[in-house]
Amino acid sequence: MKRTHNFNAGPAAIPLAVLEKAQSELIDFKGTGMSVMELSHRSKPYEDVHNKASQMMRELMDIPEEYEVLFLQGGASLQFAMIPMNFLKSGSPAHFVMSGVWSEKALAEAAKLGETAVIGSSKDDRYTFVPEKFEDPSEGSYVHLTSNNTIYGTQWKTFPKTKLPLVADMSSDIMSRKIDVSQFSLIYAGAQKNLGPSGVTVVIVKKEMLENANQEIPSILKYATHSKQNSLYNTPPTFAIYMLSLVLEWMKEQGGLAAIEELNERKAQIIYSCIDKSGGFYRGHAKKESRSNMNITFTLENEELTKAFLKESKERGFSGLNGHRSIGGCRASAYNAVPLEACEALAEFMTEFQKKHR
Amino acid sequence: MKRTHNFNAGPAAIPLAVLEKAQSELIDFKGTGMSVMELSHRSKPYEDVHNKASQMMRELMDIPEEYEVLFLQGGASLQFAMIPMNFLKSGSPAHFVMSGVWSEKALAEAAKLGETAVIGSSKDDRYTFVPEKFEDPSEGSYVHLTSNNTIYGTQWKTFPKTKLPLVADMSSDIMSRKIDVSQFSLIYAGAQKNLGPSGVTVVIVKKEMLENANQEIPSILKYATHSKQNSLYNTPPTFAIYMLSLVLEWMKEQGGLAAIEELNERKAQIIYSCIDKSGGFYRGHAKKESRSNMNITFTLENEELTKAFLKESKERGFSGLNGHRSIGGCRASAYNAVPLEACEALAEFMTEFQKKHR
Repeated sequence: MKRTHNFNAGPAAIPLAVLEKAQSELIDFKGTGMSVMELSHRSKPYEDVHNKASQMMRELMDIPEEYEVLFLQGGASLQFAMIPMNFLKSGSPAHFVMSGVWSEKALAEAAKLGETAVIGSSKDDRYTFVPEKFEDPSEGSYVHLTSNNTIYGTQWKTFPKTKLPLVADMSSDIMSRKIDVSQFSLIYAGAQKNLGPSGVTVVIVKKEMLENANQEIPSILKYATHSKQNSLYNTPPTFAIYMLSLVLEWMKEQGGLAAIEELNERKAQIIYSCIDKSGGFYRGHAKKESRSNMNITFTLENEELTKAFLKESKERGFSGLNGHRSIGGCRASAYNAVPLEACEALAEFMTEFQKKHR
Repeated sequence: MKRTHNFNAGPAAIPLAVLEKAQSELIDFKGTGMSVMELSHRSKPYEDVHNKASQMMRELMDIPEEYEVLFLQGGASLQFAMIPMNFLKSGSPAHFVMSGVWSEKALAEAAKLGETAVIGSSKDDRYTFVPEKFEDPSEGSYVHLTSNNTIYGTQWKTFPKTKLPLVADMSSDIMSRKIDVSQFSLIYAGAQKNLGPSGVTVVIVKKEMLENANQEIPSILKYATHSKQNSLYNTPPTFAIYMLSLVLEWMKEQGGLAAIEELNERKAQIIYSCIDKSGGFYRGHAKKESRSNMNITFTLENEELTKAFLKESKERGFSGLNGHRSIGGCRASAYNAVPLEACEALAEFMTEFQKKHR
């Protein structure tokens, strides 16, 4: 069986070892005579999976005691609504640092629910970098940023220390590197890039945030509801959380986030260096200092060559190299589960393609 | 490999043939060289799965043109909030027919968001039947009912024709029988009982409802958002929808809803008749006219016997026979995927247990 070189932007590659493990126990989970999908979410075997996933998140990310780890549904898009519903206070704006389309969506949803302010943006520069310099506000409900921008291929390299609670959408680079969780009051991420299949959203939230949250909202949209019930308020997406637990186990086997970060750096460099050495044949979208190790965005000299590149890459067994429909071009998403070999194969193909078409 | 007799209340049994199919293509979906979980939700192979699931829902349930079929996240619990957010109008109450705990939850969430009224309830009779007789209101936003009550084991046998739009939570009996969709304005159901794994929620909604819906709510919580984008507004839970599509295919192979309904009737009768013939050794919770074909609830003569029954049933390879923590006792959930043989085996065990303990 031939595995495709999977550079999909999300849902994305899942480690082969994880898929094989899931396959092997899909019908009979640990001798229960049932699939993990068929277990009650209140049964011991499922609760073990659930608690293990949360405990491994804590271990791998070194999450302090005073934070909750929640498994929710609805993706980052539901977080765009839940965050302001819970934490945006009347007369106390939510501040946004704008680094791309996903920041814009987060802002637009918050603006429906309360006062917002933009404190930094690279929009006028086509989001080619992350706006690290912004006026740190001292009044307001929170500061929101997007840690990695899938569409533009930019990534915060270090995070600001803000006076207000810092909220980060880490959907596309969570657990791809070591971070200091204590700098944030809330981190959220859809699983479908670095953590597993779509259908589960991870939220890491400081407990003190929950105490001061807005109360008059539906139970299911309140973080406190899920926190009080260990993410078992209602039936969780059990299979997605099971897959997450396997991915986390795999991460640990890889040597944890330090080793994963180093490998991600190498993987990205292989492709960036191919771009940089191409003498302008390949052109990176992001400014060097903001280049993402997750999403490598580039175009070719002209539209025609870009099209030929995408067509040929597909024929050669590469998936997902087309850029997001909003900006076009090419994009290689090299999330945690994309092996080094796939990046080497891509660089090789890029070099070959350049020779042929120069 | 021995399969457990799975009577779990949800997540619940999934047809073995479906699990086997999923297992066989888990790593390489239709020659893509990727798992279905690794496919982009905007790719052709995934879109085929997505559209097939929605088209098969239409076919099997005979859903009229003027309805949308949506695949959402968050379970029925998120619907408890979304329905009033979208459809509860100021000064125009939502009316509730109360048949159990899930009706109560739906009511409580709506009450946070607007005016509500209870127009029928069997609460005073410990929810032993569904309150078919209620005053049909002519003014208000909608009427809400719960078609099947997992905890009490009751089920609406025919549905009322209401003047206002009728909204039904069918989480625990959707597609277990033929219904006339045109009687309803909105039907919703978490998948984890009759349709597949947890993590996807099916909503069938009349298009004209969307036109008159409240506008000032977050995009992700608006039905119109999902309807406009074929449930691809954000990344859907692709694997859960894939499993749903396999379950729907299996349903078609079983002969569609008419055949499934007949089999469900037979399955339930096997167990009910065991209760009825037991001379009071087993005692059904629900009144006969409201008995559910999905969840068969009963107790034994005394607490001690009930405990012994549950313990022994577990040892004999039956899963999930304990009643809901709120009412105790026993419950056999015989959803679509529970085979006739499992019900026969349960009846046999019940008879044997009675002989031994009488």
